[in-house]
Amino acid sequence: MEWYIIGILAALLTTFGFVPQILKMINTRSAKDVSIVTLYQFSAGVILWALYGFHLRDHIIIAANSITLITLAVAIGFYHRYDR
Amino acid sequence: MEWYIIGILAALLTTFGFVPQILKMINTRSAKDVSIVTLYQFSAGVILWALYGFHLRDHIIIAANSITLITLAVAIGFYHRYDR
Repeated sequence: MEWYIIGILAALLTTFGFVPQILKMINTRSAKDVSIVTLYQFSAGVILWALYGFHLRDHIIIAANSITLITLAVAIGFYHRYDR
Repeated sequence: MEWYIIGILAALLTTFGFVPQILKMINTRSAKDVSIVTLYQFSAGVILWALYGFHLRDHIIIAANSITLITLAVAIGFYHRYDR
């Protein structure tokens, strides 16, 4: 079995997991019900996952969590724009 | 460096990353702005991450993603209860 395909699919799904949340905030111009604690907690978490990926020398873990961090930064930006 | 501590901290932060979102939905009795696509996309993703963890024989990856799946199921349940 080509395990790297499973890893890549997993990475794509979770890496871009907050993209639908970002799009929903943009479309509705509202973020009232979104938990900012969840967004900051995930940010701290993916930073540590990326470090753990360096330890494992696993490029998939490193790349996935680095890109997730970028999407989280975007989500946090829109949260503060639309949290009314 | 005790890398397993980094892995455990990363696992705790992301494993329970949706808990604040669950608590916010319970407290406000509202889930209007929460993206259900994000919740389902993460569910699919963590299932594949757990499989990838089996491949790497990494207990932290397996455990973290399995528990995350449970919290996502709870979050999806409250979403459908409060999505009004």
